[in-house]
Amino acid sequence: MNKQELFEEIKKKQSFLCIGLDSDLTKIPSHLLKEKDPIFSFNKSIVDATANYCVAYKPNLAFYECNGVEGWISLEKTIDYIQTNYPHHLIIADAKRGDIGNTAKMYAQCFFEKMKVDAVTVAPYMGKDSVTPFLGYTNKWVILLALTSNEGAKDFQLQQNKEGTPLFEEVLTASQKWGNEEQLMYVIGATQGELFKKVRQCVPNHFLLVPGVGAQGGSLKDVCRYGMNKTCGLLVNSSRAIIYASHSFDFAESASRAAKQVQTEMAKELSHLL
Amino acid sequence: MNKQELFEEIKKKQSFLCIGLDSDLTKIPSHLLKEKDPIFSFNKSIVDATANYCVAYKPNLAFYECNGVEGWISLEKTIDYIQTNYPHHLIIADAKRGDIGNTAKMYAQCFFEKMKVDAVTVAPYMGKDSVTPFLGYTNKWVILLALTSNEGAKDFQLQQNKEGTPLFEEVLTASQKWGNEEQLMYVIGATQGELFKKVRQCVPNHFLLVPGVGAQGGSLKDVCRYGMNKTCGLLVNSSRAIIYASHSFDFAESASRAAKQVQTEMAKELSHLL
Repeated sequence: MNKQELFEEIKKKQSFLCIGLDSDLTKIPSHLLKEKDPIFSFNKSIVDATANYCVAYKPNLAFYECNGVEGWISLEKTIDYIQTNYPHHLIIADAKRGDIGNTAKMYAQCFFEKMKVDAVTVAPYMGKDSVTPFLGYTNKWVILLALTSNEGAKDFQLQQNKEGTPLFEEVLTASQKWGNEEQLMYVIGATQGELFKKVRQCVPNHFLLVPGVGAQGGSLKDVCRYGMNKTCGLLVNSSRAIIYASHSFDFAESASRAAKQVQTEMAKELSHLL
Repeated sequence: MNKQELFEEIKKKQSFLCIGLDSDLTKIPSHLLKEKDPIFSFNKSIVDATANYCVAYKPNLAFYECNGVEGWISLEKTIDYIQTNYPHHLIIADAKRGDIGNTAKMYAQCFFEKMKVDAVTVAPYMGKDSVTPFLGYTNKWVILLALTSNEGAKDFQLQQNKEGTPLFEEVLTASQKWGNEEQLMYVIGATQGELFKKVRQCVPNHFLLVPGVGAQGGSLKDVCRYGMNKTCGLLVNSSRAIIYASHSFDFAESASRAAKQVQTEMAKELSHLL
């Protein structure tokens, strides 16, 4: 999916919601635990219940890897299910990988050729040759960590260099030499408020993947005020607030309602734009 | 395995070699491809052939993930085989993970509770709360990326802050507040030469995991000159130069010879110490 196609999906669905599939055996409704593959059953129900209200799904790989081989099977089945039934939804593997050239190449093959996802999150610490192997695929996206939503973002990402430029800005600036706005998005945490202005000065046209709305406390209104551009330019992620809206038999209906509520707010924000 | 136990193993084997299991279906001897699990067969032979000459094995997760579920099975079997047959070898999951607190906790469970490896490589970009969830396990190690061996290390790791301190030194300094030398090691690339002096000024007593000797061109002598401390303090990794010493039927014997050769050089370096 290219940038224009993504924007078309956003306009069509009146939503720029990405739903994070942080699916955890200890948090899904207990009646699902008797199923053969509880995580896949959960994901399938969540996806069916929310697909009308979102444009992307983001499985967080930690939640699958922690179940070993079985977790990996759940993940592959989930991706296959979305691709088969909802082929216009972007699938983002939230993997935050980053390694030297020949290893990054293996990760790129893993995500783009084997799993066939549309996008993968990548960590910038190891520099250019850890990112470029992911950029050789048409209509596939690298979503580079820039300014994250967590407390630890302050430790290094906000550290300023000699010119007073914080590290996350160096990442934004340097990475634009590695790929263009049809290949690169950036992770910018919803909790970062006015720093979105600085982000938009560096990358006015790129899409941003924005976690941290919902459970982590970020505000959708603020994110839109400072972060929205003329092609929307935002994928706002919500995980726990939607997929765990209920822990009971009505979990799918509750997730649907929660997603619809976010979508309604997003439609209002998009109305300023369209 | 704690720090003293690791040092005892190093003295006993006269080696501080870590062998990287970057096992790749396109590079292992072709006669193994008819086996049911070629990667596991390859790893088993490599481990049996080299265990006398090394103190650690480091499977690089990219090479397993790229084969999906089958790759994950090969990885679990490899780890189980080493743990069962060579329980005094340190197993390092080279995963370079890094994510916010609740996700980092899932990764920590994955590696330390499910896979039961001894150590995992972690990326520092997201700061303290992306690292501390890995530090709550006794006799388990976080190996934090600091100064890597690749060209891209220059892009951000060597960038200086206002005080002239490069980012990798900030990582070394900040992380010492998060954990101690019984919990933390650092990745320092063998290609970094004299920068090892700076590293040792920051972390005189920590173990360093040093990739980049061999295929990437780093020198063992230089690494030892600048990086060795009174408890050795080094785990020097070699992957391709050992596991792919031959691509034919004699691959295991060739790997054994290559590992023994490195071990012989390491014994000389250790003689200055002991």
